[in-house]
Amino acid sequence: MKGTMKAIAKQKAAPGATLVEVPIPQIGNGELLVQVRGASICGTDVHIYEWDEWAQSRIKPPLVTGHECCGHIVEIGPGVTGFAEGDLVSLESHIPCGLCAVCRTGLQHICTNLKILGVDTPGVYADYVKIPAICAWKHDPKMPIEIATVFEPMGNAVYASLCEPISGCSVAIMGCGPVGLFATMVCRAAGAGPIYAVDIDANRLEMARSFGAHETLDAKNGEEAIRRMLAGTGGDGVDVVLEMSGAPSAIRTGFKVLRKGGRFTAFGLPSKPVEIDFNNDIIFKGARVIGINGREMFQTWYKMAGLVRSGTLDPRPVITHTFALTEFDRAMTTMRSREGKVGKVMLIP
Amino acid sequence: MKGTMKAIAKQKAAPGATLVEVPIPQIGNGELLVQVRGASICGTDVHIYEWDEWAQSRIKPPLVTGHECCGHIVEIGPGVTGFAEGDLVSLESHIPCGLCAVCRTGLQHICTNLKILGVDTPGVYADYVKIPAICAWKHDPKMPIEIATVFEPMGNAVYASLCEPISGCSVAIMGCGPVGLFATMVCRAAGAGPIYAVDIDANRLEMARSFGAHETLDAKNGEEAIRRMLAGTGGDGVDVVLEMSGAPSAIRTGFKVLRKGGRFTAFGLPSKPVEIDFNNDIIFKGARVIGINGREMFQTWYKMAGLVRSGTLDPRPVITHTFALTEFDRAMTTMRSREGKVGKVMLIP
Amino acid sequence: MKGTMKAIAKQKAAPGATLVEVPIPQIGNGELLVQVRGASICGTDVHIYEWDEWAQSRIKPPLVTGHECCGHIVEIGPGVTGFAEGDLVSLESHIPCGLCAVCRTGLQHICTNLKILGVDTPGVYADYVKIPAICAWKHDPKMPIEIATVFEPMGNAVYASLCEPISGCSVAIMGCGPVGLFATMVCRAAGAGPIYAVDIDANRLEMARSFGAHETLDAKNGEEAIRRMLAGTGGDGVDVVLEMSGAPSAIRTGFKVLRKGGRFTAFGLPSKPVEIDFNNDIIFKGARVIGINGREMFQTWYKMAGLVRSGTLDPRPVITHTFALTEFDRAMTTMRSREGKVGKVMLIP
Amino acid sequence: MKGTMKAIAKQKAAPGATLVEVPIPQIGNGELLVQVRGASICGTDVHIYEWDEWAQSRIKPPLVTGHECCGHIVEIGPGVTGFAEGDLVSLESHIPCGLCAVCRTGLQHICTNLKILGVDTPGVYADYVKIPAICAWKHDPKMPIEIATVFEPMGNAVYASLCEPISGCSVAIMGCGPVGLFATMVCRAAGAGPIYAVDIDANRLEMARSFGAHETLDAKNGEEAIRRMLAGTGGDGVDVVLEMSGAPSAIRTGFKVLRKGGRFTAFGLPSKPVEIDFNNDIIFKGARVIGINGREMFQTWYKMAGLVRSGTLDPRPVITHTFALTEFDRAMTTMRSREGKVGKVMLIP
Repeated sequence: MKGTMKAIAKQKAAPGATLVEVPIPQIGNGELLVQVRGASICGTDVHIYEWDEWAQSRIKPPLVTGHECCGHIVEIGPGVTGFAEGDLVSLESHIPCGLCAVCRTGLQHICTNLKILGVDTPGVYADYVKIPAICAWKHDPKMPIEIATVFEPMGNAVYASLCEPISGCSVAIMGCGPVGLFATMVCRAAGAGPIYAVDIDANRLEMARSFGAHETLDAKNGEEAIRRMLAGTGGDGVDVVLEMSGAPSAIRTGFKVLRKGGRFTAFGLPSKPVEIDFNNDIIFKGARVIGINGREMFQTWYKMAGLVRSGTLDPRPVITHTFALTEFDRAMTTMRSREGKVGKVMLIP
Repeated sequence: MKGTMKAIAKQKAAPGATLVEVPIPQIGNGELLVQVRGASICGTDVHIYEWDEWAQSRIKPPLVTGHECCGHIVEIGPGVTGFAEGDLVSLESHIPCGLCAVCRTGLQHICTNLKILGVDTPGVYADYVKIPAICAWKHDPKMPIEIATVFEPMGNAVYASLCEPISGCSVAIMGCGPVGLFATMVCRAAGAGPIYAVDIDANRLEMARSFGAHETLDAKNGEEAIRRMLAGTGGDGVDVVLEMSGAPSAIRTGFKVLRKGGRFTAFGLPSKPVEIDFNNDIIFKGARVIGINGREMFQTWYKMAGLVRSGTLDPRPVITHTFALTEFDRAMTTMRSREGKVGKVMLIP
Repeated sequence: MKGTMKAIAKQKAAPGATLVEVPIPQIGNGELLVQVRGASICGTDVHIYEWDEWAQSRIKPPLVTGHECCGHIVEIGPGVTGFAEGDLVSLESHIPCGLCAVCRTGLQHICTNLKILGVDTPGVYADYVKIPAICAWKHDPKMPIEIATVFEPMGNAVYASLCEPISGCSVAIMGCGPVGLFATMVCRAAGAGPIYAVDIDANRLEMARSFGAHETLDAKNGEEAIRRMLAGTGGDGVDVVLEMSGAPSAIRTGFKVLRKGGRFTAFGLPSKPVEIDFNNDIIFKGARVIGINGREMFQTWYKMAGLVRSGTLDPRPVITHTFALTEFDRAMTTMRSREGKVGKVMLIP
Repeated sequence: MKGTMKAIAKQKAAPGATLVEVPIPQIGNGELLVQVRGASICGTDVHIYEWDEWAQSRIKPPLVTGHECCGHIVEIGPGVTGFAEGDLVSLESHIPCGLCAVCRTGLQHICTNLKILGVDTPGVYADYVKIPAICAWKHDPKMPIEIATVFEPMGNAVYASLCEPISGCSVAIMGCGPVGLFATMVCRAAGAGPIYAVDIDANRLEMARSFGAHETLDAKNGEEAIRRMLAGTGGDGVDVVLEMSGAPSAIRTGFKVLRKGGRFTAFGLPSKPVEIDFNNDIIFKGARVIGINGREMFQTWYKMAGLVRSGTLDPRPVITHTFALTEFDRAMTTMRSREGKVGKVMLIP
């Protein structure tokens, strides 16, 4: 497709973002051009916007940013099968090489040569985005745009929650940001219980409760949280910890409440190394610590679509705010605020 | 405890059952005496009542029958820890030896020297029953008696459904007798979908729908059922088949609708060997056929308790009829009838 | 590459094969041209040669046949990364579409739209063969040609043996054709024991013993074979059955000697449906029946390369005969003969 | 059995051990009396001998110590089935309660109420020891005493190595004390490769090489060790790390060489908390960290017996020294020495 489009870009190596007019991406072999219908903001996008240390080391301006979206296919490159113009698709943001040892053993989502949409390649905060067909997920045409928009971030929660069985298990969800909230919903949809949601923010805890948590606990009072979770599990501790915060104190609390033989799922990224009591937290407990990054391609997506189709999972209540793409600065201000209930912030191009 | 009690017994090698007065069982090392509060009828009990070929070969009259129940502990044998008088317990009906190779590798429920309560040892259709403490499952004292009564048969459904992950998976439940109905509930509670319930009986299908099936299909029209399930899964077939009927035609239909790489769970007992198309049904499909007998001791019980505690699983609607234990013949007549909606039939001593 | 090459082809719908001169295949996007250095004969090739019912229904002459081979890359198509001219590669014969639900959930080897090299596309009994890069497995340049030639069929044995853990397990290998012999080697390399090799052919049993079987048993005396395997496993039965023959009697024997909770691995293709005693062979046993077709792409290949590299697996002794490709009829005669020890028959273009 | 026996005991709260004459233990329900034929020394016994901080907090003198042994059954308590006088048995040192949630979900080896032989109960450095029958492992009568003596510590290595499949996998064994040496043997027997053995001690590395390591690396030069392991695995890193040392530097090296999606097995006990780079070592890698304590009861034992029976595993070369039980001080001096090759030290009562 010829012409230009509007987009939100990191134009120079500094905080902020700029509304720009840029050429529509030209697609090649195996690629699709997608007209973006909805996008949403991830913590990564906040780091890029704020231009923190990580962003400075990774992002090469100018770059159109954003990696969570859905849209309609408007152009199909040579060699692509299984897609048609007009198809509604969500995009997997992890772009694998397909030929490294990691890809060849079923782990494309952590490919050795991984590129991330909107980080390493032009992103989705735009009218159009191009994507390899292997990263497109086709929806039923009746799928609501809001749901399709957040499939990628909700996929993190689905992968983290369901990487091992969780039905009938007790769960501690450490951290109730958007992915923690999605995880609360997923755990509830999958029959986990009791589900403990732990955070320092009362608004987030209230959202977690409304999305299915059986009990919410104030992370600022860690000892009391531990006491409550142990009491609620007959003193044994929870079957599964979903660590979605990256906070060292949450990691410690998580290990303290994990039962013997339990699963500790590490998703939240601490800002620096964390001290772990290997003996009591892992070895004597016979625990499994499972690192989660991205989403399985595409086992996670199939399970997620099944949960949505079955009527047990509807992520829309997590989307608390919607803005036009052109209001990006306002959207970012909302996203970064801790006033009121802020879940996922959505953008409409 | 001294004295006698009333019980339902197979007094001689012939059809029927007799209300008798027998001594209260005397417990020994590691055993518990339980006052039965609720019992229920299994298909096995029907076979014993009708005195079919299997029953003739296995049952040695006189025998108090029945193996599904809950009750309160009234006496505790030497060497038992972890239980107190007054505890509400459900009973695991599979009594393992604990020392064979099967028991020693985590599979007590299919112990080489397995004894079954009410089949090989005096059963639960009585005021009191004795049981090894290793077969007792302690409930919260507030657990409703109806729920505790059917933990054992519901455990079959939980084990069959959750022996591998099922959240977000499409499922075909072949056969909607009581265990198939429990399985429908369990699959729904665990976030499976779509759930197809298949049976020849319209009443059972209606119950299955009310318990969570997304679609019900008439097994008498097998080709149409296959067509509908394939259409509903994009032509791929279902992720999981739960074969709960033992009917050869249901087994065949199950294999036909199973997707490549899918799981076929074999629980229903065919009355004779079944012809299987190994090549197309198992090998080319890369399928897994998983035999299910009893319940994992006690992983299944923990998951089941978690599902109930989380509020996602409530088996009470499956219990369609309740009788006094002394009305055993009427209960059996109801159980064997196919008129109206008959799910689980419960007995109160 | 321009020019013609010699090849063995099924020229018309009739038994036999013809040495022909055909154009060298022209490669496109994502493809490689490989100069064949070694090829070998599979049972499938025998079916095609003999032009049996299956072959008549599947093969469209004229077609260059053969799917087991290794060779050097001589030309690289656009878009291929990770390969260089001169690389020694073995070929995965299962050519997946990459975009169907089966491919997208880690099961490309049983892709819904699967094409098989030398069956659906021109094969390897030729000087050159073209292949999608996603089906090429790169070897260390020092890998012996004989070993690289049989990676594909040995992969069946590796996948069947190691699809679940086998170290320290007792194993019954039903059928000692080439894949059964490879499986004997793989089981031995992985520390299985005791390994029982069962076949009707004394020569094959002698080979199985020399490749690592602890005990060989005559399948013609099934009752005695069962008795010996039960005696050798304390009456419990074997942990794992590898059914590599497809013979109904072997399938039955396999189920009879399988322990409770054991794994029955179905690889050999019966020529028609088989009667299975679901109750005693699968359900009461709590058995798992696992269908195996092809090889996991590429988990199986990595494990196989590890076993070879570690010095514990060397498949060369299974290759009992080698012919020039032009002697194809003689090679086929040898392959179909049961006189003397015939394992894998290799062809050199 | 009446009478007294000789034993090695911690008589008072101070370093050292004393040869004492004490009553033969009297057995009760479910217990066995075993005449010890061989015992061996574990690192735990060294801690008790040296009376370090851990020992002071855990051991209540007077106590007969030691927990690794084999012997013949000389007396059988009431209620025991499956054992006979004269049976040769090895002892599982982890004594579970059998009724807690951990025991009831297949994890008796880390029972909530776990007692350890020779730590919490009278141990095996004696002529006789009593043990619950559920902790006895019966051998073939022809099993050599040396092998039966070290089944318990070798079980740690078997559990750590085989808790997930290892055949065909590359492995880094961090630490070549006795359990690391056993692990080297087990990995080799199970077809792992390449096996890297890493230690600071040249004698231990030499032993590791003779027991099957493909390459030995000096842990004192960590960067070079990392470089070599990455080079040997195509830059991807090893599939499995077995951390058997507890040294923080070894833990760090282990994580650095672990491939994406790999398994880090934590067995060695660090003396204090360890700083972990959660992001790069676990989360981005999609790694699994698996805590190992004790041995699975009795899956590990069955696999171990299978490996020994198959002829692929013979632990005797790890036993480098043998003493009479009465020479306990000399045995301890040898065990604590780092001069020459010291593997497992064995004691004969």
